[in-house]
Formats: sequence, C-alpha cells, structure tokens
Amino acid sequence: MLDFDRYLAERAREVESFLDRNLPTEDAFPPSIHRAIRYSLFAGGKRLRPVLALASAEAVGGRAEDALPAAAALEMIHTYSLIHDDLPAMDNDDLRRGKPTSHVVFGEAIAILAGDALLTHAFHVLATAASTNGTPETSEGERRLRAVSLLAEAAGMNGMIGGQVIDIESQGRGVDEKTLDQIHQKKTGALMEVAARLGAVMGGGEDDQIETLGGFGREVGLAFQIVDDLLDVEGDAATLGKSAGKDLKAGKATYPSVHGLENARSRARTLAQRASDLVAPFGPAGEPLVCLARRIVDRSS
Amino acid sequence: MLDFDRYLAERAREVESFLDRNLPTEDAFPPSIHRAIRYSLFAGGKRLRPVLALASAEAVGGRAEDALPAAAALEMIHTYSLIHDDLPAMDNDDLRRGKPTSHVVFGEAIAILAGDALLTHAFHVLATAASTNGTPETSEGERRLRAVSLLAEAAGMNGMIGGQVIDIESQGRGVDEKTLDQIHQKKTGALMEVAARLGAVMGGGEDDQIETLGGFGREVGLAFQIVDDLLDVEGDAATLGKSAGKDLKAGKATYPSVHGLENARSRARTLAQRASDLVAPFGPAGEPLVCLARRIVDRSS
Repeated sequence: MLDFDRYLAERAREVESFLDRNLPTEDAFPPSIHRAIRYSLFAGGKRLRPVLALASAEAVGGRAEDALPAAAALEMIHTYSLIHDDLPAMDNDDLRRGKPTSHVVFGEAIAILAGDALLTHAFHVLATAASTNGTPETSEGERRLRAVSLLAEAAGMNGMIGGQVIDIESQGRGVDEKTLDQIHQKKTGALMEVAARLGAVMGGGEDDQIETLGGFGREVGLAFQIVDDLLDVEGDAATLGKSAGKDLKAGKATYPSVHGLENARSRARTLAQRASDLVAPFGPAGEPLVCLARRIVDRSS
Repeated sequence: MLDFDRYLAERAREVESFLDRNLPTEDAFPPSIHRAIRYSLFAGGKRLRPVLALASAEAVGGRAEDALPAAAALEMIHTYSLIHDDLPAMDNDDLRRGKPTSHVVFGEAIAILAGDALLTHAFHVLATAASTNGTPETSEGERRLRAVSLLAEAAGMNGMIGGQVIDIESQGRGVDEKTLDQIHQKKTGALMEVAARLGAVMGGGEDDQIETLGGFGREVGLAFQIVDDLLDVEGDAATLGKSAGKDLKAGKATYPSVHGLENARSRARTLAQRASDLVAPFGPAGEPLVCLARRIVDRSS
C-alpha cells in the first residue's frame, strides 16, 4: 500500500526545490518583482497540478523528474492566474492561502507584472530548464515543443482565460447548468487536464495513454472544482485560508447553488470514481493517481 | 534599389493576414475577449518587430514566411505589453495609436485578460502554427523550441517585464544615465533584439549570424526608443496617435531629458549607422534591414 501522504510531501518538495532553482533569488534586480513572484509561488499551495503531472509521468512508465519542467510551468501558470484573478478589477480578493493577496502587499502594478512574469517564465522553463536527469533523450525536444503547445492552448483564450472571462461576465446573472459546466471545464478543468497530459508526454507516453490521462485530469479537475464550491459554502476562512462565502457574495453561480449540496457531493464522488477506473489499467504505476483522485474529494481545505 | 515602402507594406500585410488566420474570429465565444484582442492587435501598429524578424530570416538566406509564426508571436507580445502598460495601475493612458485604450473600451478586467491571452497565444502560435510553407524541415521543431526559449527570456522578468518594473519604480525620481540605459535596453531593446534573433533562427541562420543580427536588433531598438522619446517631446498627439508630452507629465526620465535634444538626435543616428554596418556583410539580402534602420531614425510617428 502506497503511503500517499509521504508521496505527496516528497513530490511537492521536489517541485518546490526545482522552482527555487529555476527562479532568480529574491534579491535579484529589480527586487520588487522577484519578491512578489516568490511571495505568491511559495505561499503554501497544494501543488496539485504539478503532482498530477509527475504522477502521470510515472503512470506511463517514465520517471517523475522527466516531468519536472512541465510541473514547474503548470504551477507558475496556476499562480499567475490566482494573482490576476484576485486583482481589484477582477474578483477583488484580499486574502489567499491565509495571506494578503499580491496587490495588497506589492501594489497593483507589481501584481500585474508578477503575474505576467510567471506566465512568461513558465514557457521559458518548459522549453529550456534541465530536468534533474542529466541524459536527455533525442526525443526530448519534440516532447517539450508539444508540451508548450498543449499548455498554451489549455491556459489560453479557449481554456483557462476563456473560463475566467465567462465567469466574470456571468456574475450576478442567473447561470444555467451548461454555462456553469463550461466555466468549470475551462477555468479549472483545462489546466488539470493538461497537467496530466503534460506528465504523460514528458514521461514518454503513447498517444492513447496521453488521451486516457487527459480524461483522468478532466474528471478530477471537475471534482476538484465542485469540492471547492462546497468548501466555500461550508468552510470557514481559518480552514480555507481564503475568504469563505465569497462566491455567494459575488453572486457567482456554483455547482451547489445550481444543483444543491447533496447532489454536488455525490457528483464529486462519482467523478473521482470514474477517474480512478480510467487509470486502473496502469496497475501499480497508476496508484498515486488513484490516491490523488480520492484525496481531492476528501479534502477539507 | 529596394522600394522599401512597398517592402514594408507587403511584409506588414503578410503578418496581418497570418495573425488573422491564427486567431479566433471576433464573434467566437466569449465575444468580449476576442473583440478586445482584435481591437488592439489590428489598431494600425507599425509591425516593426515582425518585419524585423522577417527581414532577418531573409538576411540569412531563409524565406520570410519561415519566420511568420515568430513574427506573429512578437507582435502579440508587443501588443499585450501595450495593453498592460496603459492600465490605470501602470501608466494610466487613455489614448494609443489614435484610439481609446483597451481598458477604456472594454473595462479593466477584459483588458488584463486580453493581454494575458495574447501573451499565452504567442507561445501557442510559435510552437504550433504552420508557416505558409507546406514542407517543414526536420530541423524546424528544434528551431521553434529555441525560439520559444529566446522569446520567453526576452519578454520576461529579466527582459521586457523587468524594464517596465524599473521604469515604474523610477518615475518621479532622478534617474541616472546607467538606469535609463537599463530601462531602454530591457523595456524596448530586448524585444527588438530577439525579433532579429528569432528571424535568423527560423530562417535557418548559423550561430554567428544569429549573434550579429541580435546586435543589429539591439542597436536599432535603442535608436527606436531614443526617437520615441524625442517624438514625445517634439510631436503632437495628432501625429503620434498617443498622448504627447506624457513622459514629462509622468516625471519619466527620457534620453533627451538626461542627455539633451541634440545629443539624443546624434546618438540615434550613430546607432542606426552602427546597425547598418553590422549587416553590411549580408550584402543585398541585408538591404531591407539597412532601410529599416534608416526608417527608424527618420520616422515622424
């Protein structure tokens, strides 16, 4: 039986160490931007997307470290999206992971630029950074270029950014089921799906394995978002590390507000189960993914 | 003798047609972001960076169309940087290329997201988009990956974004010569330099050619910035299509304010001449670059 707490802690530590090595130090010039970048990037995130990428690389028989540049790029893009989403012109949030948000600490200009810098650096690291593995295969360049393309697509106007646009524009209006699914799928789902795909690509997976893992990422991504919405209703700020009840205040449609609490809970469990079934054929190599799907549904923060 | 006006118009048209083909239409969903993207991208920019990339590809013996994905990516990144720089939290400008800025027309949230989307899509296009040439060489993947890495570096925290941070943080303070050079080199120079480099990479240039063209881009980039500063002092809004005298109002250090008008003019001419000398060894293939260097110094808007 896999000790999943230990697995999660070890993988998260590898990602954090890789991020640290592939970023300028906090006192690099100009200091404000580097402080702002590190403030948000090392704010105690769960490292869910990078761990999903590493576990997917392992599932297809690759080594976790082959996927480290992709894992780091995913976390940088996730972090930039949080910094920009929290801005006064967007969700106007002043608390994130239990700390004041970037624009509260560094001002709006630096927060915008720190986000831009993280987004840009994600592609630099993905295209360039050496993984810890010192012997790149000849096919590694191809894999990286494919990863750049997939990541840019998932994070872009038809993926994550598109989801944020639809979310912002539907606030305060009645949102139907279809629109809500679309927001979830693009805003959270696209990056989770591509995290699994990127791991599989960098781990040297075959096309059908990459597809299967993409499906896994999509299912757990949606489960994650539903649980997020549930925690926003049921949780308190101390446990969440961010403002609770903010969706309701913002007039945002959420899965529980559209479908009811009990339906939301049961849907999250069904999605996690379906995701686990998808990766069953990978056998023991897929065990971390099965544990990850379970953890996403059982989490309390 | 090259008809440079015609060359410039033809190359700009090729870039615009390529951009148009590689972006969702204005009525794609969600419409606001696609309208905002096209509003800024097709606002009558001079297409200087893309043309520099195409001319550099030709200088090393490649075809201009080989560099189209790079040219489009450069223009998308340039445009995103203008949208974000104009935001109220940054330079707070409401006029750009003779039109209201993005946040004035679409609101701050959509302006931020349109910028994010352009930055992200730049890497997608660079990694993925087919050039008009239907027979990609086997080495094209390597070139593209190298281009992604170079572009992300030039546009990132140590390049363009770093320059904007230093610029913002030095407004209203006395800025010495060294800091001013640093702002210019990073904020404008880095993207011009990489435009020439990317063209050379995509055109199949050798490493020493790529270096030479990078030097050309650096020199004309600095000349361009000095002329920009001069036009801000001497021009009027009607000719410039943006607010004149805004540097002075913002308490920004500029090349003329630090060195005087006459020194600034003569420095721009010297830089353009030095750039032309650099590309003399390319012979007729480098003629568009020589004309470009001259045009940058002689322009009135």
